[in-house]
Amino acid sequence: MTLKIGVIGTGAIGQEHIGRLHGKLVGSTVVAVNDINLENARVVAERLCPSASVHATGQALIDSPEVDAVVVTSWGPSHEEFVLASIAAGKPVFCEKPLATTAEACQRIVEAEIAAGRQLVQVGFMRRYDAGYRQLKEVVASGRIGAPLLLHCAHRNPSVPAHYVGDMGITDTFIHEIDVLRWLVDDDYVSAQVIEGKKSRHALNDLSDPYMIVLKTRSGVVIDTEVFVNCQFGYDIQCQVVGEDGTASLPEPATVPMRQASQAGRALLMDWKLRFIDSYDVELQEWVQATTEGKVTGPTAWDGYFAAVTSDACVEAKRTGQIVPITTMDKPDFYR
Amino acid sequence: MTLKIGVIGTGAIGQEHIGRLHGKLVGSTVVAVNDINLENARVVAERLCPSASVHATGQALIDSPEVDAVVVTSWGPSHEEFVLASIAAGKPVFCEKPLATTAEACQRIVEAEIAAGRQLVQVGFMRRYDAGYRQLKEVVASGRIGAPLLLHCAHRNPSVPAHYVGDMGITDTFIHEIDVLRWLVDDDYVSAQVIEGKKSRHALNDLSDPYMIVLKTRSGVVIDTEVFVNCQFGYDIQCQVVGEDGTASLPEPATVPMRQASQAGRALLMDWKLRFIDSYDVELQEWVQATTEGKVTGPTAWDGYFAAVTSDACVEAKRTGQIVPITTMDKPDFYR
Amino acid sequence: MTLKIGVIGTGAIGQEHIGRLHGKLVGSTVVAVNDINLENARVVAERLCPSASVHATGQALIDSPEVDAVVVTSWGPSHEEFVLASIAAGKPVFCEKPLATTAEACQRIVEAEIAAGRQLVQVGFMRRYDAGYRQLKEVVASGRIGAPLLLHCAHRNPSVPAHYVGDMGITDTFIHEIDVLRWLVDDDYVSAQVIEGKKSRHALNDLSDPYMIVLKTRSGVVIDTEVFVNCQFGYDIQCQVVGEDGTASLPEPATVPMRQASQAGRALLMDWKLRFIDSYDVELQEWVQATTEGKVTGPTAWDGYFAAVTSDACVEAKRTGQIVPITTMDKPDFYR
Amino acid sequence: MTLKIGVIGTGAIGQEHIGRLHGKLVGSTVVAVNDINLENARVVAERLCPSASVHATGQALIDSPEVDAVVVTSWGPSHEEFVLASIAAGKPVFCEKPLATTAEACQRIVEAEIAAGRQLVQVGFMRRYDAGYRQLKEVVASGRIGAPLLLHCAHRNPSVPAHYVGDMGITDTFIHEIDVLRWLVDDDYVSAQVIEGKKSRHALNDLSDPYMIVLKTRSGVVIDTEVFVNCQFGYDIQCQVVGEDGTASLPEPATVPMRQASQAGRALLMDWKLRFIDSYDVELQEWVQATTEGKVTGPTAWDGYFAAVTSDACVEAKRTGQIVPITTMDKPDFYR
Repeated sequence: MTLKIGVIGTGAIGQEHIGRLHGKLVGSTVVAVNDINLENARVVAERLCPSASVHATGQALIDSPEVDAVVVTSWGPSHEEFVLASIAAGKPVFCEKPLATTAEACQRIVEAEIAAGRQLVQVGFMRRYDAGYRQLKEVVASGRIGAPLLLHCAHRNPSVPAHYVGDMGITDTFIHEIDVLRWLVDDDYVSAQVIEGKKSRHALNDLSDPYMIVLKTRSGVVIDTEVFVNCQFGYDIQCQVVGEDGTASLPEPATVPMRQASQAGRALLMDWKLRFIDSYDVELQEWVQATTEGKVTGPTAWDGYFAAVTSDACVEAKRTGQIVPITTMDKPDFYR
Repeated sequence: MTLKIGVIGTGAIGQEHIGRLHGKLVGSTVVAVNDINLENARVVAERLCPSASVHATGQALIDSPEVDAVVVTSWGPSHEEFVLASIAAGKPVFCEKPLATTAEACQRIVEAEIAAGRQLVQVGFMRRYDAGYRQLKEVVASGRIGAPLLLHCAHRNPSVPAHYVGDMGITDTFIHEIDVLRWLVDDDYVSAQVIEGKKSRHALNDLSDPYMIVLKTRSGVVIDTEVFVNCQFGYDIQCQVVGEDGTASLPEPATVPMRQASQAGRALLMDWKLRFIDSYDVELQEWVQATTEGKVTGPTAWDGYFAAVTSDACVEAKRTGQIVPITTMDKPDFYR
Repeated sequence: MTLKIGVIGTGAIGQEHIGRLHGKLVGSTVVAVNDINLENARVVAERLCPSASVHATGQALIDSPEVDAVVVTSWGPSHEEFVLASIAAGKPVFCEKPLATTAEACQRIVEAEIAAGRQLVQVGFMRRYDAGYRQLKEVVASGRIGAPLLLHCAHRNPSVPAHYVGDMGITDTFIHEIDVLRWLVDDDYVSAQVIEGKKSRHALNDLSDPYMIVLKTRSGVVIDTEVFVNCQFGYDIQCQVVGEDGTASLPEPATVPMRQASQAGRALLMDWKLRFIDSYDVELQEWVQATTEGKVTGPTAWDGYFAAVTSDACVEAKRTGQIVPITTMDKPDFYR
Repeated sequence: MTLKIGVIGTGAIGQEHIGRLHGKLVGSTVVAVNDINLENARVVAERLCPSASVHATGQALIDSPEVDAVVVTSWGPSHEEFVLASIAAGKPVFCEKPLATTAEACQRIVEAEIAAGRQLVQVGFMRRYDAGYRQLKEVVASGRIGAPLLLHCAHRNPSVPAHYVGDMGITDTFIHEIDVLRWLVDDDYVSAQVIEGKKSRHALNDLSDPYMIVLKTRSGVVIDTEVFVNCQFGYDIQCQVVGEDGTASLPEPATVPMRQASQAGRALLMDWKLRFIDSYDVELQEWVQATTEGKVTGPTAWDGYFAAVTSDACVEAKRTGQIVPITTMDKPDFYR
């Protein structure tokens, strides 16, 4: 059986996902596309999935009987509308992060999904599909290092462009840690603190860079993360779990060890797109498989909601310098 | 377009390849199977590719008009027959290593393929498809470490069973290095030496283990490889290229760095099947793609022949303790 | 010229220092000892420096004309008295950490030394003499990683005994980081925060373990340190400096890389005494040399005072959960 | 008690040893010096040990009643004469490598020492005093990796000057491995082979560089060593012992791990003098101590003889391309 997919949003990430779902992965085909820029949708379809129909609106695509499942890769502010419409149409929907741009919108999606009586929504947090994080979770879950107590993490980008401003270090960058670390230790956050200090001379104008974010979980795990988006030297993702009996760390990408010019070392990635590129394949392949079986096995609407609430708390913590509590609605049994 | 494949040999590796070609990879389907044990072929087909026809003989499968391309995963001594028959039928054939059990048989395949006027044969040396070796080749080819001068390699297995005897350290184990190192430095071998020494107490009865093999290439590169198939500690593949300006090494599989019980370290693989498991997917996916395009992009019949000649020389070198020249027929233009 | 030294306090560390100063290092000899337990002083002298005189009191030892310089390795609460007496006698004095048990006492020493008009006091913070920290300071000072922005540190002990209680994680353990990190980044602290979380099941009764301490410096460097004194796995000291252009980390002790039993790894130290044992030699050898030349080149009374004030602030921060300012008297020109 | 030492040869290494023995180490003082260039001896003494007498000849220095023990750091061809004279005078003698320039001369020293009835000679193979090799020997001797079977080694220099010619790769460079590896595995060599291949473009004129040397020991251990003295990238000493149950490797010098400019790595030493500089201190300190106690605990005249015979065999193996047996006189009981 082949899952017939409609993709809303044919920008960069949309095109990448179309490429995966139509040709690279098994069990899926892209039958319909839409974009706010219809001409772009036509050009992309022509190039990547010429047999797909181009729909005038996202709603039309969702309603099309040929579409089994929806992928939302449009502009963030439009996510809520298309996800809600997919739920209303009873169709499985894969929505790139963020699930919606506010916690309230995420909550509306959660409530709509519960009302629909069936899980339909998956959020595009791809790190859960990274082989390294999966190995690390397996070690943590095995109990080999005892209960996790502390996590030391870093999210470093070589640089960011001028339009990367304000709280994007939280909403665009740290958001990945928010989801994956909660999944890693299987625990919820209860508070957030942001510690700002000396600013790098490479940070543009108003950008605070780097800073530390400290999250605490219900069971008391303390998670510190360095967010440094102009670190110059490479795209560098670190995660060390300190448990009662030992530590376990995220493996780094395997690269060629070299000795040259008085240095022993290896190359670091400079382009973040390469770091988790395999994860996108695994993510979508598993989504296609689970969707075909009528299940949601990846990050749920609840996870998307939890990430949004946490992100809001971090932004507030950064603004105030205070330790900000993270408060959500009670977790519905629906998601247990 | 979907490549319709017939698989001869439904043993362990045959079943794995059927699983890949029928369901996991894109662009291929398994339409026919055969095995010397017909009942086994039926059971395997039932389980993995129920729509495939079961042919009474390999020849019948090859001749079947529904079969576009042939995969030979039968017992080594039968390879020559099925590869020659595929060539005779004008059908692309992927043959697991060895291409044939003697250098003479390999030469007959080479000559048949040349006579057929078109490359049809690919040999299953999967290491060329390993991400690590590919990265290493890219570094070497880039000239960043200068011309390669020496290679230090190791092929270590935790242990081998009682039926692993005689020269299998060369014919079954080192054969992988023979192919991949020649590809890595893009050079041919001219001599082989085997240096035996103290035998591990873990080596059964008559098995010489470990030993060193020294190959020399036409341009003078000296390649030493430790073959140690009862090393106990793990499945461990090493390759360091020493160039005029630096060294570059095969990356090791990315695993979780841990600190525990007074040790800082990480787990080694104990099962060789896991080390190159991804390579098989890449190998067959590229073969399917190239075959669909009417090309051979992987190890050729000539490579299979060269490996067989080299393996023979190593066996002779082990028997005599001498430095044995490696002499082949001239490389036909057909393979340039 | 040989420096004639009197040692007050012949307990464990006292005996080690006597061994160094009388036989292992050059340019010094131990001519006098004293201990609150006079019999112990006699036994130790007999064994390690039989020609030394045993003095009935620390004051008598300090006053003895045969003593050129004093080493104080007695019980912490007695440090202030002996250091002040040495200053009063105009004799150079090396005092093991802490300089004194309160910030006020340290301030009295600072004032006495200034009044004496000449630097005489050195405090036993030995990490500044560790080859690794020295290499790291050299890299940081070279500007190769740009201005330091963040430090990520860890101080881990396998376990601590039952009498390790209360705030000793700060006063006995973290005190080393307090001094060495201030020296490393050549900056002063302005605030401290302690973040407690989940407690290890290996922590005895009332001990909070592990926790994070966050210091901020005048220029804005944020320093987080994990203090974990029942980490089980080893004695593990970590320090990573994140600068504007790169990171640099404390090298770990060189140990034998091994592959064994499905692990690639190396042994960690379990005994803290071994980690900095070479540093004590370097520390005292440099002190003997500098003292002979009439100089103080190591941690000064001011450094001891600053450490005491910082330690107090950390204790307060742990008690209150608040970010506590670190406020000292103005730095006297005397120490510039 | 202070050992009064006479040093013959006040060139570079002589000056370094005088610095150690007269001021840096404990228990020794340099009371006499000599050099073939008497003026140089005078200048060096003036600078480093002004109270030492300058003797007109090495013999006069050896005969001087004020000299307890002799250090020979003169030109290689003069070693035999001074070592024999020291033995004749019944004085302990530390001779820099080589013990003598021919195996025959070494044998004469061995015979003279036996005739004298007491061990007096130590040869300056300093690697046995390196902390890394000592750790490695401890691991090997502990049996943790089982019986050693293979050693993979490398001796790499960034570059050598124009006067480094002919067989100096063996007689000056590999000679260190010859001694330290024999000590490491506690076994004697029985054969040598040299495998030459492609020559680096950085090798001057006639120098063969790099090459592999293969030694075999009495118990069958196979030792391969890469000698590469124009490797460009750093001074790099490698040694991996492969045992029946695992591998153990020489630790590399601890240096600062850095991330910078898209590289994760650490600096390599470029200057060989720094790699074993600490070993010289340990070597001479232990020699002073043992000599004071009337013992020889370091490399003996027999070790110097064995190294010379092995070196000769390697030179012969390089000349002929053959596997050359290593044959010595029977080991006298005197050295057991």
